[in-house]
Amino acid sequence: MTTYPRPVLEEVARTREVVARLHAELPRWGLVVWTAGNVSQRVVVDPRHGPGPEDLLVIKPSGVTYDELTAEAMVVCDLDGNLLEGDRSPSSDTAAHAYVYRNMPEVGGVVHTHSTYATAWAARGEPVPCVLTMMADEFGGDVPVGPFALIGDDSIGRGIVETLRGSRSPAVLMRNHGPFTIGRDAVAAVKAAVMVEEVARTVHIARQLGPTVPIDQNHIDSLYARYQNVYGQNLTEDRS
Amino acid sequence: MTTYPRPVLEEVARTREVVARLHAELPRWGLVVWTAGNVSQRVVVDPRHGPGPEDLLVIKPSGVTYDELTAEAMVVCDLDGNLLEGDRSPSSDTAAHAYVYRNMPEVGGVVHTHSTYATAWAARGEPVPCVLTMMADEFGGDVPVGPFALIGDDSIGRGIVETLRGSRSPAVLMRNHGPFTIGRDAVAAVKAAVMVEEVARTVHIARQLGPTVPIDQNHIDSLYARYQNVYGQNLTEDRS
Amino acid sequence: MTTYPRPVLEEVARTREVVARLHAELPRWGLVVWTAGNVSQRVVVDPRHGPGPEDLLVIKPSGVTYDELTAEAMVVCDLDGNLLEGDRSPSSDTAAHAYVYRNMPEVGGVVHTHSTYATAWAARGEPVPCVLTMMADEFGGDVPVGPFALIGDDSIGRGIVETLRGSRSPAVLMRNHGPFTIGRDAVAAVKAAVMVEEVARTVHIARQLGPTVPIDQNHIDSLYARYQNVYGQNLTEDRS
Amino acid sequence: MTTYPRPVLEEVARTREVVARLHAELPRWGLVVWTAGNVSQRVVVDPRHGPGPEDLLVIKPSGVTYDELTAEAMVVCDLDGNLLEGDRSPSSDTAAHAYVYRNMPEVGGVVHTHSTYATAWAARGEPVPCVLTMMADEFGGDVPVGPFALIGDDSIGRGIVETLRGSRSPAVLMRNHGPFTIGRDAVAAVKAAVMVEEVARTVHIARQLGPTVPIDQNHIDSLYARYQNVYGQNLTEDRS
Repeated sequence: MTTYPRPVLEEVARTREVVARLHAELPRWGLVVWTAGNVSQRVVVDPRHGPGPEDLLVIKPSGVTYDELTAEAMVVCDLDGNLLEGDRSPSSDTAAHAYVYRNMPEVGGVVHTHSTYATAWAARGEPVPCVLTMMADEFGGDVPVGPFALIGDDSIGRGIVETLRGSRSPAVLMRNHGPFTIGRDAVAAVKAAVMVEEVARTVHIARQLGPTVPIDQNHIDSLYARYQNVYGQNLTEDRS
Repeated sequence: MTTYPRPVLEEVARTREVVARLHAELPRWGLVVWTAGNVSQRVVVDPRHGPGPEDLLVIKPSGVTYDELTAEAMVVCDLDGNLLEGDRSPSSDTAAHAYVYRNMPEVGGVVHTHSTYATAWAARGEPVPCVLTMMADEFGGDVPVGPFALIGDDSIGRGIVETLRGSRSPAVLMRNHGPFTIGRDAVAAVKAAVMVEEVARTVHIARQLGPTVPIDQNHIDSLYARYQNVYGQNLTEDRS
Repeated sequence: MTTYPRPVLEEVARTREVVARLHAELPRWGLVVWTAGNVSQRVVVDPRHGPGPEDLLVIKPSGVTYDELTAEAMVVCDLDGNLLEGDRSPSSDTAAHAYVYRNMPEVGGVVHTHSTYATAWAARGEPVPCVLTMMADEFGGDVPVGPFALIGDDSIGRGIVETLRGSRSPAVLMRNHGPFTIGRDAVAAVKAAVMVEEVARTVHIARQLGPTVPIDQNHIDSLYARYQNVYGQNLTEDRS
Repeated sequence: MTTYPRPVLEEVARTREVVARLHAELPRWGLVVWTAGNVSQRVVVDPRHGPGPEDLLVIKPSGVTYDELTAEAMVVCDLDGNLLEGDRSPSSDTAAHAYVYRNMPEVGGVVHTHSTYATAWAARGEPVPCVLTMMADEFGGDVPVGPFALIGDDSIGRGIVETLRGSRSPAVLMRNHGPFTIGRDAVAAVKAAVMVEEVARTVHIARQLGPTVPIDQNHIDSLYARYQNVYGQNLTEDRS
């Protein structure tokens, strides 16, 4: 990484801190067990720093427990998923994160979990229907299902991008696998990971005892537009 | 707020402490994720202090995490929801809280969450039937459902007040949205928020495997009357 | 309490410590919310200390949160439920505890909760069937349901005693109300409260997707007999 | 144990630390209540140390709470389950652990819990179907059910070995009882105990609202082969 300009290296150091800290949110909200789950954030390489390398990503290493997740333990990869800096291998899901960054330039953060309720909808291959005002706010409609894809090449990344490109939803339920979420940075993607599990769980429980009441499409549109308008200046800002 | 008499300003300071501390109960009992949920308490402006301004309310600011909720972070609004004191915007649910305070003078505290089981009943638009003695004690009957209402005007507040005025229940399940609870102060409203999730969850689980046994109306009345009589002197006092 | 001999007063002091400490197990295992739930333990008054008063019980006061439960906060009652020592009123369930101690001399500890899954079976009025080896070990069969009973006289206590006298089960699900458990001391009753929720939850979940496999009655008898025989010397000792 | 060579005794001391520490993972991931559950690890006795005794195992004592589980509290047994070192009786499940070590020389760690969802499948006698990519990775197919077996002889151990020998799965659901898991060491067996509960729970929830989508057998084989190949060098290493 010696070819990268100093401002980029400083940004890498800051991003290591952010990504390490955000991993603590996954067990905190009950989204992961053991070493499962991963958070990444893009490091933008500004072309004004001269003709230089492409953007980078910071991600969790493979097989490290949530007790050990320090900034130093994080690893840095290029957007082809090659390890540039770090003592351990990057997460085995790095290829999927990297594909998203290469193909969705507006995305600055990606999160993957096997959170229980979201994964349960994924195992049935069924989208989560938008029957809660908080879903209209955050997802602007149903949470969609992506295709079944094997690990090992670009299949997972392609399935994420094909499902989320043009969708209001920042979350996709990859079939038989689990949720991937995106955001303008890692904190927004972590928030989407927390929210997708929350709505998957609430709608699941609602449906267990009978049909839910639909929300009119124009009300969904109105809630989503207001939420994006009021909070859209800062995508990481939350309301309550 | 310089026009307010000193006793009111002192009461505002005390209320900031109470409201900040009570917010910690929401994640503690699993009622909220991320920055969702909010607690408010009325500050009574005694007319004996001279012809002066109306009552105030202290509430959580918008988009602040539960780790940051100090007394200083709380914000103060008038009962039209206008920000009087505070560095951040008030919760986007402030209009609903303010409407309740304007129209139910006996209410001193309001809480809103998206707690999972209560919200699941709300998504079906179905009241929680009173089949537990603790429901008879605390709610005096079923937990009612309020109308669907969009955020942005007085619709949510009006739905809360129309449903709870004249009801024994301190909780309403706003359709497709979630529970709002009231009390003579914020601690009573928080207790009601904890209890509505507890009974929503227990009755949900009971109903999953078959019909529940109803409780006779006269038994419900008797349990409620006893509970209000014995504990009614101090609405914030709990029994066990 | 000045009429009680010194060894009894010392035993009261020790029992206050035990009962205070055991209350922490109720929120720890998720059996209670807010101030619900209570643990009591009998203090035996040995007649060899001279012609003196009857046995006592130590119990949680009414309406105290789980953060405040110190030995000093506990209250002492006689077996008619009258307060002998303490700054606050005894739990409103004291009459039920006292009735059990008066009528079941072998019982030294009583616990009451509204733990979710046990209360859900109680709301249907349905015993938990013995389909787990740990149920055969601990309960020796199904967990029985007791009658519906109003608070305010001996109805609840009588329902507990009539259901548990002659039963192998240390737990009864009072209809539309929740579980009461007994033991030779308070730790055994707390263990039974933890276990009844655990088996109520596991069997509930098992039954959600289809019928469970019954265990032969002679296998239940054999498991129960072995467990009582091996661990029977010390009823508070646990196996794993 | 004075007949054992010094390197074995040093390995026993290290194993006591490991087994004590790993017990903390069981309540951490919600797999146990009260004193239930146990972890053991084999201590290999190298025949090069001279003609000496057979392998040993370190396990939790019976009836000790999770707050008291220090290295000193662990007990050492031979592979017939006889206590060699320790102040308390070994876990009542020691015979089952010992049988597995005697009959599966490749196994270095065994875990037993009554974790809720895995035990629920066991109560129905139903294998957990492989409908999640993480199941294909970790279990290579369905999680199988073992026979009903009474405690007191080799029945449980025999049921475990007969079910797992030749299976890809490191977990068996003993009918009406609960899961046993194996691994090359105790940490791998603990990981399998965490994962079997996770997949039992996720598939349960998926199935509650309708049928799950099957994964093609060749995809299961491919996922399993890749996972074993990439992570197979070190069976205790995890991916994320």
